[in-house]
Amino acid sequence: MPEPQLAAWRVRTDAALDRALPADNRAPQRLHAAMRHAVLLGGKRMRPLLVHASGALFNADPALLDAPAVAIELIHAYSLVHDDLPAMDDDDLRRGQPTVHVTFDEATAILAGDALQSLAFAVLADAPGSPPIRVELLRTLASAAGAAGMCGGQALDLHATGNGHAMTVGDLEQLHALKTGALIRAAVRMGALCGDADDDALDALDRYADALGLAFQVRDDILDVEGDSATLGKTAGKDAAQDKATFPALLGMTASRQRLDELSRAMDAALAPFGDRADGLRALGRLAVERDR
Amino acid sequence: MPEPQLAAWRVRTDAALDRALPADNRAPQRLHAAMRHAVLLGGKRMRPLLVHASGALFNADPALLDAPAVAIELIHAYSLVHDDLPAMDDDDLRRGQPTVHVTFDEATAILAGDALQSLAFAVLADAPGSPPIRVELLRTLASAAGAAGMCGGQALDLHATGNGHAMTVGDLEQLHALKTGALIRAAVRMGALCGDADDDALDALDRYADALGLAFQVRDDILDVEGDSATLGKTAGKDAAQDKATFPALLGMTASRQRLDELSRAMDAALAPFGDRADGLRALGRLAVERDR
Repeated sequence: MPEPQLAAWRVRTDAALDRALPADNRAPQRLHAAMRHAVLLGGKRMRPLLVHASGALFNADPALLDAPAVAIELIHAYSLVHDDLPAMDDDDLRRGQPTVHVTFDEATAILAGDALQSLAFAVLADAPGSPPIRVELLRTLASAAGAAGMCGGQALDLHATGNGHAMTVGDLEQLHALKTGALIRAAVRMGALCGDADDDALDALDRYADALGLAFQVRDDILDVEGDSATLGKTAGKDAAQDKATFPALLGMTASRQRLDELSRAMDAALAPFGDRADGLRALGRLAVERDR
Repeated sequence: MPEPQLAAWRVRTDAALDRALPADNRAPQRLHAAMRHAVLLGGKRMRPLLVHASGALFNADPALLDAPAVAIELIHAYSLVHDDLPAMDDDDLRRGQPTVHVTFDEATAILAGDALQSLAFAVLADAPGSPPIRVELLRTLASAAGAAGMCGGQALDLHATGNGHAMTVGDLEQLHALKTGALIRAAVRMGALCGDADDDALDALDRYADALGLAFQVRDDILDVEGDSATLGKTAGKDAAQDKATFPALLGMTASRQRLDELSRAMDAALAPFGDRADGLRALGRLAVERDR
């Protein structure tokens, strides 16, 4: 998969996000501006790219993929807004920009996050495509976002912060399987649901997505140790300062890098049956493992 | 409509909510316990009762009404959890119980609210009923919950707090049309969508719901002046202390009571064409106007 294809999907996603978000010259302006700030100021668009790459693998109509691509990015963006709040991670910087509660205020950040979550489901409900597929997309996203997925992982993470030394690697992988893994798995599934994937293909995709989600997080933890805030666009070194459980803290840096290699190979193995058609997903796997921010 | 019918719908709703919520003996326990605290410790269940009463008017199968009744109460409950946070209304008491952030902590309250919102959409996506109806229910709820509905109204309310004296009655009615009106309208619509309502009937129901939503809020404002915290189950006299725009503050008590009478008559007029079959909705209208908590 050539990088231009990823870049084209990124541009397509940004345009679709811009259309889906309410205009900030309409009331309530401050809420709308906060929602747009949360979504439009940067971001790798990893989850929307996974929707498109997975959809392309199964011959999905690209016009059907915009809604799930937008919806999953809205869920991701809302989770960052709430995660950055003073009562949660208390982070001032995100994607190189002041976080929503710093730019606006805490109450507006809470509401903007809430409204972004509602918008994600509204976008899917309003999407083109048959009602049975839309219901499946809605079920996949709602389940991945909630207590059995992302929110559940964040709750485990709350408990882990300040107790990092008390966790095992198994606990940590379970935490991330929910906190970041659930949405990544949903992104890959939603793309496939818009195309002609069968159950065997969905199982292989789940294995790919699980390895990708974990690789993404291992790389994140390594970057928090090695990176600098300017490149990362967020505060580096924060995990250690908060006594957060991380892969480097539990395994050391060498074993963390080895784990990353293992996960790369697991992704390759899961995608092998699909041949060249999975090059988009392969490219995204490499990005997750090799990125420096 | 005899009160026993409302009581039976309330019992049915409480049982359905209990089934929909995750068990608090499963991890993450604290998140699940906070979600259950937010939903199961009291509440009038006004919105679920509206779903059932509206569905009954249009001969909907009661088994189809459980999911929208549960989903709308989950959205309402999450909004209260976030609304009570220190950065928002900063309220310690709700339904006679300590609020979620007081019983647990702020971070857990934020996450529990987020997970309740996801659960609302998951419940609708998993509901029985045809996919086209489920998509309509999902669209109705997502639109009512978001920036063009409840969250938008709360954003207007944020701006109004501390600026209450600068608002007109028109501004205040617009605020409440979004903040509480949008969900009440959605409740009535969702019940009707599960039955055989035609467009004329839906228009009449919208007029009823708009009057009901406003009446509910006028009564709330009157109770904040007249009531005591023990009966209300929340802190009385708070609106004036926060210089919040309220109907009594803008109109005086006499004119506020007159407005409530007008809204009662508007509800009666909207429901007249339906005859006795609308007695459930009539009874809920009276409850909103006459309640003392």
